[in-house]
Amino acid sequence: MTRSDNRGPADLRPVTMTPRFLVHPEGSVLIEAGRTKVICTASVEDRVPPFLRNSGKGWVTAEYGMLPRSTNTRSTREASAGRVGGRTHEIQRLIGRSLRAVTRMEELGERTIWIDCDVVQADGGTRTASITGSYVALALALKTLVTRGALPRVPLSGQVAAVSVGIVGGVPLLDLAYDEDSRADVDMNVVKTSDGRYIEIQGTAEAAPFGRDQLAGLLDLADQGLARLIALQQEVLQS
Amino acid sequence: MTRSDNRGPADLRPVTMTPRFLVHPEGSVLIEAGRTKVICTASVEDRVPPFLRNSGKGWVTAEYGMLPRSTNTRSTREASAGRVGGRTHEIQRLIGRSLRAVTRMEELGERTIWIDCDVVQADGGTRTASITGSYVALALALKTLVTRGALPRVPLSGQVAAVSVGIVGGVPLLDLAYDEDSRADVDMNVVKTSDGRYIEIQGTAEAAPFGRDQLAGLLDLADQGLARLIALQQEVLQS
Amino acid sequence: MTRSDNRGPADLRPVTMTPRFLVHPEGSVLIEAGRTKVICTASVEDRVPPFLRNSGKGWVTAEYGMLPRSTNTRSTREASAGRVGGRTHEIQRLIGRSLRAVTRMEELGERTIWIDCDVVQADGGTRTASITGSYVALALALKTLVTRGALPRVPLSGQVAAVSVGIVGGVPLLDLAYDEDSRADVDMNVVKTSDGRYIEIQGTAEAAPFGRDQLAGLLDLADQGLARLIALQQEVLQS
Amino acid sequence: MTRSDNRGPADLRPVTMTPRFLVHPEGSVLIEAGRTKVICTASVEDRVPPFLRNSGKGWVTAEYGMLPRSTNTRSTREASAGRVGGRTHEIQRLIGRSLRAVTRMEELGERTIWIDCDVVQADGGTRTASITGSYVALALALKTLVTRGALPRVPLSGQVAAVSVGIVGGVPLLDLAYDEDSRADVDMNVVKTSDGRYIEIQGTAEAAPFGRDQLAGLLDLADQGLARLIALQQEVLQS
Amino acid sequence: MTRSDNRGPADLRPVTMTPRFLVHPEGSVLIEAGRTKVICTASVEDRVPPFLRNSGKGWVTAEYGMLPRSTNTRSTREASAGRVGGRTHEIQRLIGRSLRAVTRMEELGERTIWIDCDVVQADGGTRTASITGSYVALALALKTLVTRGALPRVPLSGQVAAVSVGIVGGVPLLDLAYDEDSRADVDMNVVKTSDGRYIEIQGTAEAAPFGRDQLAGLLDLADQGLARLIALQQEVLQS
Amino acid sequence: MTRSDNRGPADLRPVTMTPRFLVHPEGSVLIEAGRTKVICTASVEDRVPPFLRNSGKGWVTAEYGMLPRSTNTRSTREASAGRVGGRTHEIQRLIGRSLRAVTRMEELGERTIWIDCDVVQADGGTRTASITGSYVALALALKTLVTRGALPRVPLSGQVAAVSVGIVGGVPLLDLAYDEDSRADVDMNVVKTSDGRYIEIQGTAEAAPFGRDQLAGLLDLADQGLARLIALQQEVLQS
Repeated sequence: MTRSDNRGPADLRPVTMTPRFLVHPEGSVLIEAGRTKVICTASVEDRVPPFLRNSGKGWVTAEYGMLPRSTNTRSTREASAGRVGGRTHEIQRLIGRSLRAVTRMEELGERTIWIDCDVVQADGGTRTASITGSYVALALALKTLVTRGALPRVPLSGQVAAVSVGIVGGVPLLDLAYDEDSRADVDMNVVKTSDGRYIEIQGTAEAAPFGRDQLAGLLDLADQGLARLIALQQEVLQS
Repeated sequence: MTRSDNRGPADLRPVTMTPRFLVHPEGSVLIEAGRTKVICTASVEDRVPPFLRNSGKGWVTAEYGMLPRSTNTRSTREASAGRVGGRTHEIQRLIGRSLRAVTRMEELGERTIWIDCDVVQADGGTRTASITGSYVALALALKTLVTRGALPRVPLSGQVAAVSVGIVGGVPLLDLAYDEDSRADVDMNVVKTSDGRYIEIQGTAEAAPFGRDQLAGLLDLADQGLARLIALQQEVLQS
Repeated sequence: MTRSDNRGPADLRPVTMTPRFLVHPEGSVLIEAGRTKVICTASVEDRVPPFLRNSGKGWVTAEYGMLPRSTNTRSTREASAGRVGGRTHEIQRLIGRSLRAVTRMEELGERTIWIDCDVVQADGGTRTASITGSYVALALALKTLVTRGALPRVPLSGQVAAVSVGIVGGVPLLDLAYDEDSRADVDMNVVKTSDGRYIEIQGTAEAAPFGRDQLAGLLDLADQGLARLIALQQEVLQS
Repeated sequence: MTRSDNRGPADLRPVTMTPRFLVHPEGSVLIEAGRTKVICTASVEDRVPPFLRNSGKGWVTAEYGMLPRSTNTRSTREASAGRVGGRTHEIQRLIGRSLRAVTRMEELGERTIWIDCDVVQADGGTRTASITGSYVALALALKTLVTRGALPRVPLSGQVAAVSVGIVGGVPLLDLAYDEDSRADVDMNVVKTSDGRYIEIQGTAEAAPFGRDQLAGLLDLADQGLARLIALQQEVLQS
Repeated sequence: MTRSDNRGPADLRPVTMTPRFLVHPEGSVLIEAGRTKVICTASVEDRVPPFLRNSGKGWVTAEYGMLPRSTNTRSTREASAGRVGGRTHEIQRLIGRSLRAVTRMEELGERTIWIDCDVVQADGGTRTASITGSYVALALALKTLVTRGALPRVPLSGQVAAVSVGIVGGVPLLDLAYDEDSRADVDMNVVKTSDGRYIEIQGTAEAAPFGRDQLAGLLDLADQGLARLIALQQEVLQS
Repeated sequence: MTRSDNRGPADLRPVTMTPRFLVHPEGSVLIEAGRTKVICTASVEDRVPPFLRNSGKGWVTAEYGMLPRSTNTRSTREASAGRVGGRTHEIQRLIGRSLRAVTRMEELGERTIWIDCDVVQADGGTRTASITGSYVALALALKTLVTRGALPRVPLSGQVAAVSVGIVGGVPLLDLAYDEDSRADVDMNVVKTSDGRYIEIQGTAEAAPFGRDQLAGLLDLADQGLARLIALQQEVLQS
């Protein structure tokens, strides 16, 4: 089996991150993974949701959207539909949890960081690209707060990145493009910290259930991809 | 560390399933796991969503809800709020995927099975109880179709059950009750078929990321619980 | 004309009320009238709606819902529809008014009692069962407040119960089941206090208008049923 | 006790109905009862809701609204709020039922008559004025269909009118104005046909429950008012 | 080309304004322009939107609605649809801007004037009639505040009125009726102050784009109509 | 008075259009005007809205959105708010009307072109940039249809472009940036065809009304800018 773009099974698509892509947000990045393009921004708000008031702790929350024609067929704009769909809810909750896992909320203080991930072009892996890119946007926004003197240091305990893996035609593959994802027997999203531990593992088999050994193979593949993404995040943040 | 109800770390809470709990649905069950109680029903509709019309294939979809006072503090009724929350979306999508993974859609034909899981009382593990109970409701509904002569045999490729595991105070535990779940470092839901393969693994660490060995320990615990739940489903369906 | 369950025209269906049916609410009851089953809960909130702030008075309000498959045919979940239907609005307003009529709001103080009536299985008479059951849930919740020392005595001026009556095939009947209700010429819901006075009378004739004498006959029937329901409420509350 | 406008207890407020108040609808009337003013229109649509398709029967349905400043204090526009409130639902369902009770649906054929009642100025009794006025609008619309040759005769089995009665300060009163309604112990809306039978009786006692004799007194008062309203409808329709 | 009501190209339809049309609002007027009838009310609220709190300035905002059968064909009630349509949004924003342009917000103080324009009957020009009538309602409401001693003088810098013009069959026409508007090549709404300057010009050509000279001709026509409307407003306010 | 970016009063900001910016849509462009960046896409759907079915005519409609952090302060995502705001409605209606004015609907046939304008970064002039860019996206999508053999020629009667003008501090300026727009006395959007006629003129004066001579000055300025934009569109389409 050959991948449509001649990648090997353990190859990531070319990934680039353009930091400070927009002028207004405290932190922003354009992440491109193959043809998938997501704008990630981090906005600082000087208050927290009701359940955290007077706790001294901050909050990180995320919203996700797709431009109507980011996909092959135009989808209805969620604003026009008047409701956010289940898939969007699922993804934005995942992004939020992933970033909260590396944020020191006491050090952040009573601030909310709003993460917005907007998919400009979709070709599979938008949720994992959103997490990987959002981490950079978040780190940039927190640096901005340090630069402004609002925080003594960046309140992050580590990096976080995400990648997809899956089994397509019996073969475990790293970083599925849309045409692969739509044929996959098993689809897994893996979110990991820079110290090598998992924040989230979501493996799903609509078609063919998988065994413990297949799980191990997929996690190995993911680990390889995540190491490269974490290194790339560092480069981008040091540039 | 002692569990609040004196269970061992690898003990399930007492589980009962009352089949044919309601008179109207084609399939129904009341599942109780400790203090958690969920009514699961399966309703047959003789048509499919637009994307499956004229495909010859059926569909299984799920909705989930909680009675406002199923929880310790009353929550707003989603109907009154006018929107279904993100957590509900996430859960009902998970239930639907899990059941679709064992349903033979061509054999089902152009019918939709609507699964409704309504939590009457919540004490942790409502989404996994919903999956385990829904499988029984689904099987009963499909048997009803066989009895009516609408189908030659039950179009299921196997059973599906789900259980939660987690790490609480450093100790891996099976089948978390609410007070455990709210203190857990890692929380994982595992959905498995009766032939021992995984349909879905969702592990989340908001607080403390976990390593590969911890993952293995949690899956071992889950496997033990799932074997018992799958046996119980068989008993209930043969009664 | 024989009733489908061999009842006489002035017979109630078998009624049972299971108090403290759920562990979380301050008051709860499962009321069953024939095949109709409704879970009624009463939840205490320590504040009142804006129009009562600083008035020293409390409030009782009700919400009503049906499980999607509580009925013979599955109905759309109101949460998914994104709006509460007219029938639901009508019923929950009726429940609220009925309970407020026997509650001493000054004695209750600035608290709201939220009544939730969730129909698990429907076979006619769900709104009247909701009122009869909710009264018990309300009384239990108020007793809980007395036990906690939050109130000196239960702030109720009497009991309230409700029953349906109707004219089916020219014959006045007490406590209509669904198959009777759907054929009724006249349908009436009567809500009464334990001192024998009316709180609400709602008589409707979509098909055949009714005269003053027929009204009198229906109210006589309702009075008989209500006397028995009020006695049953007392038993349940004293158990 | 004197009524604010010097009426006797059994006096209606001055009532006028201006037929064909608007140029577009098939039937329309402006009904004024004291300071209460409601525009009632009847619009013909040449199809029926799904549950009546191919039944040969017609349908009558009603919607009700209040201009934001029809009341003493401006209320939020329901269109802006994005949802129709419970009171509105209750009222529009009542109007619809009342008119359906006198419409011969087989003779109407597969048509829907949409009734719109829009309150321009409110001073109590808007729902009963809506019913009384809507009957005239409905009759005019049906006459229009006869004139156009679409129907052989007006498919109505009789007239329908409505009035409110109540007990204020212990005294039964006919046709409550807003200041009376807001102080009433008992409030009752009575809907009757021209042959003297009831279509709907809705009596409510939020404050002081009422006995059977008080009910009789209120119905007597209502009967007097309804006789006059029914006579007035005839005059208007013959003009 | 003859206009359907025999007007000349530069003739307004007969216009009347009935001030104090309703009893409840601080200011109200019924404006009729030919068959178009709009009820305009101005309601005073003693607070401002969040962005103006503690600014010392007031606010004027407008809402617009149409009775479902104000038009030739019944339109869906926006409250029932659960959303305000784009055309309504566009119109109510235009009304608000027009009135704010002549209101001295510092003199008004921290009050909001809510303008409600409800179209009872539509025959073209509802948005311009709404502006012309709303100005009178606004002036009356502000006079009420002066009379009550809440304001020293009416905080208006001038009058504002609006009219439509258009090109129909190549001929520029003043004050289009619906049948003209629906055939127009160019449709323009002009909003002007009493000192002869423009507040808003909205010219639209869905069919045939227009040149600079045509624009001049349309503005000339509009000026003639506006002069008469402004004179009429004065008469009405002095009556 | 100096403009913040040293432009002269009649200077456009630097404008670039990147055609075929996205891979999925039939037509797409990224338009940048100074710091304002809008992605415009045109998507072909092979059916028309109900009011055009069986008419043989096509339709062009537009939707507009802003990324939450395209602005200086994060705004609520309209999808999350559950409703599209008034400003958005106003803008998307304007874009749609502008493009329809140059589209030959009979030649297009029963197809809908969906225009999506998504503002990635906002610095004033987003609605005019949307129109100018959308024309290019529309033309590219129609060319795609010609290339596919679905249409014999591009069904456009001309080009359409838009620009803003305004009076700031008494000085008429072309192409306002956000800081200018927010201080403007008069703000005008001008939409014109390539044959030099107007499609839409929207001039608004919230603060200081304007006279006929000022209008002429503004239109002169707009004409200069529009000539350059129309030339640029041609270049881009010929590349």
